[in-house]
Amino acid sequence: MAEVKNKKAVLRHYVKGFAKESDFEVVTSETIHLKVPEGSNAVLVKNLYLSCDPFMRSRMTKHDEPSYVPDFVPGSVITGLGVVKVVDSENSNYAPGDLFWGLTRWEEYSLIENPELLLGIKHEDLPLSCYTGVLGVTGLTAGAGFYEVCSPKKDDRLFVSAASGAVGQLVGQLAKLMGCYVVGSAGSDEKVELLKGKLGFDEAFNYKKEPDLKAALKRYFPEGIDIYFENVGGAMLDAVLANMRLNGRIAVCGMISQYNLEKPEGVHNLTYVITKRIRMQGFLVSDYIYKYPEYEDRLAQYIKEGKINYMEDVAEGLECAPAALLGLFTGCNIGKQLVVVSHE
Amino acid sequence: MAEVKNKKAVLRHYVKGFAKESDFEVVTSETIHLKVPEGSNAVLVKNLYLSCDPFMRSRMTKHDEPSYVPDFVPGSVITGLGVVKVVDSENSNYAPGDLFWGLTRWEEYSLIENPELLLGIKHEDLPLSCYTGVLGVTGLTAGAGFYEVCSPKKDDRLFVSAASGAVGQLVGQLAKLMGCYVVGSAGSDEKVELLKGKLGFDEAFNYKKEPDLKAALKRYFPEGIDIYFENVGGAMLDAVLANMRLNGRIAVCGMISQYNLEKPEGVHNLTYVITKRIRMQGFLVSDYIYKYPEYEDRLAQYIKEGKINYMEDVAEGLECAPAALLGLFTGCNIGKQLVVVSHE
Repeated sequence: MAEVKNKKAVLRHYVKGFAKESDFEVVTSETIHLKVPEGSNAVLVKNLYLSCDPFMRSRMTKHDEPSYVPDFVPGSVITGLGVVKVVDSENSNYAPGDLFWGLTRWEEYSLIENPELLLGIKHEDLPLSCYTGVLGVTGLTAGAGFYEVCSPKKDDRLFVSAASGAVGQLVGQLAKLMGCYVVGSAGSDEKVELLKGKLGFDEAFNYKKEPDLKAALKRYFPEGIDIYFENVGGAMLDAVLANMRLNGRIAVCGMISQYNLEKPEGVHNLTYVITKRIRMQGFLVSDYIYKYPEYEDRLAQYIKEGKINYMEDVAEGLECAPAALLGLFTGCNIGKQLVVVSHE
Repeated sequence: MAEVKNKKAVLRHYVKGFAKESDFEVVTSETIHLKVPEGSNAVLVKNLYLSCDPFMRSRMTKHDEPSYVPDFVPGSVITGLGVVKVVDSENSNYAPGDLFWGLTRWEEYSLIENPELLLGIKHEDLPLSCYTGVLGVTGLTAGAGFYEVCSPKKDDRLFVSAASGAVGQLVGQLAKLMGCYVVGSAGSDEKVELLKGKLGFDEAFNYKKEPDLKAALKRYFPEGIDIYFENVGGAMLDAVLANMRLNGRIAVCGMISQYNLEKPEGVHNLTYVITKRIRMQGFLVSDYIYKYPEYEDRLAQYIKEGKINYMEDVAEGLECAPAALLGLFTGCNIGKQLVVVSHE
C-alpha cells in the first residue's frame, strides 16, 4: 500500500485586519495511505488546481455568530474549491483517473467524504484549469450575477469594478456580447490596457490615479450608469451611487476593498437609492448551482468560438498558495488566481 | 370683483444643515382678485389643508445638479400637496365649491395653471383632511411601498422605522392585516404605547433609549427580519442590516435622519447585502400614481371597516406651517402632519 507525505496549507490562527503570509504555514506533518478505508463511501483524490477566491478571507476571521460560510479551524488544513483526480475509491462512479471539481482541501491528497458533491468535468477539450475559473465558480458567479441579477438589456450602460479580476473580466465580456456599453475600473495601467485591448471593454480607468472617483465615472457615463456590477465596495460604491441612472441595478457580488478592514468604510450616498429608485441586490453563487450546467455550456461555447477571453494567474506549488490568496486583496492578480498543486 | 389679501409661506433662502423657522417667513404682501384671468384654463382655488412631507426638505437645498424634485425658489411661495376648493374657473369640470387634492402652494388662494393634474375627492363620507394623508400621498406611499416593493407574505417578520409617522403607522397596520409579525421603532415612550395599543403592532421600542440598536432588534427579531420598511437611514439601517434574514427585502422609502446633515452618515454593514442576499429597493410614490385609485379605495374601505386607524397632527393656520414642516425632522408629529389653512 503506497504511503506518501501529504503537504498542506494551514491557517495558524484567526486573523483581524489585514491578513499576511505569516498567518499561514505550509507543513508536511502527516503520512497517508493512498487507499480509502475499507467499506468507505469516501474518495481519495489528488488535488491538481486550487482556486483562490475572495470569500475565503471571511473564513479566516472568527465570527461570534455563524457567518454565511464556516470559519476555518486554526491548525487545520484550509478548505476551498479545486480540480481533483481520483486516486482510489470503492465506488465505480469515481474510478482512478477520473477528474472532478468542487470542494476540496489545500493539500496534495484529500479524502473527500461526500464525493457526490463533486461536479464532473464535461469540456475536456478545454484546459482543465478552466474548472477553477471560467468553467467553474467564476463562470457561474459572472453568469448568474449578470444574467439573473442585473436584468441586463442591449444598450444598457454597465460599470464593473475589479474588472480585471476573474469575475469582472467575464462580466464585462458577457455584457459586450449583449450589446451593452461597458466600462471597467482596475488598479494599474497595465490592467486598464488589457481591459480596453484584449478584453474589448469600451473604456477602462485606473482608479488609483483618479482623485475624484465620482468625476471619473461622470466622464465615462455622462448620462449615468444603468448597471453596476459591484466587486469592491467602499468609496467606489459611493461614487457609483451618485452616478446611477433612474431605475438602475446594482448587483452586489463582492466588496473586496472591505474584507481586511476591522470596521468597514461608511457608504454615504444611499439616499440616491430612493431618488433614483435603485435596486441593490446581493447574491451568492451557491444559490445558482442549479444554473451551472447552462452557464458551463454557454461559456465553453463562447470560449471555443473566440467570443470571450479568460486569463489565469498561476502560482506553482502549495508553498505559494498563501501568497497567491492574499494577492487577491492587494490586486496582484490578473484574471483567475489559481494554484497548481500538481499538473497531473 | 372680490379682492383679498393672500397670505403665503415663503422660503427666505436656501438652507444648509438643519433647517429652522427663521429660514421661512409668512407674509401678506399681495392682493389678488378671486377670478381667473379671462380665457384662462387655470383654476382659482382656496387652500384648505396642506400636507407636510419629508421630501420637502430636499427642495430647501440648492442642488448643483438637478435633484429628483425641483429646488424651491427663495422668496417665492412654497409648493406642496394639499386639499383645495375651487373658487373660480371657466371650465365646467372645475365648478366653484368642487374639492380636489394635489399640487398647490402654501398660501390662502392659488391659481392652479394645470388643474388637470388635480385628483378628485371620491370618499366624501370620510374627513376631507384624509386626502392629505391616508387617502392621499401617504396612503399611496404606504400601499405601493408595502404591496409593490416589499414582496410581503403571511408570517413575514416586518420592521418599520419612524413607525408612528404617517407612512409608518399605515405600513405596520397593512402588514398586520396580511398576517405579518410587526415591530416599529419611534422616538418617545408615548409613541411606543400608541403603536402597541391603538395601532396593533406586535412590539415597538423607543430607539432613543436603546444604546445598542443592533441588540434591540435582535431582541425583537431573534430569527431575523424579513422585511425592513426604511424611513430613517443612518445608524438604524446599519443595525437592521446586521439583523436581516436570508433573502430579506429592504424597501427604501425615506432616510429622514439624514436630510438635515450636510454629509450623510456612513453605513458600514453593506456586506450583509451579499451574504444575506438582501434586495434593497428604493421607490418614489410618484412612480405609482397609476395604482392610486386601487389604494384609495382599499384604504377607505379599511377605515370604514375599522381595520386601520390613522392619526393626524394638525397645525392651525399658515403661520404655523413652517414649524409644522420642521417638526417632522425632530419627531414632533404623531401621524400625518398637516396644516389647516381654512376649514372650508
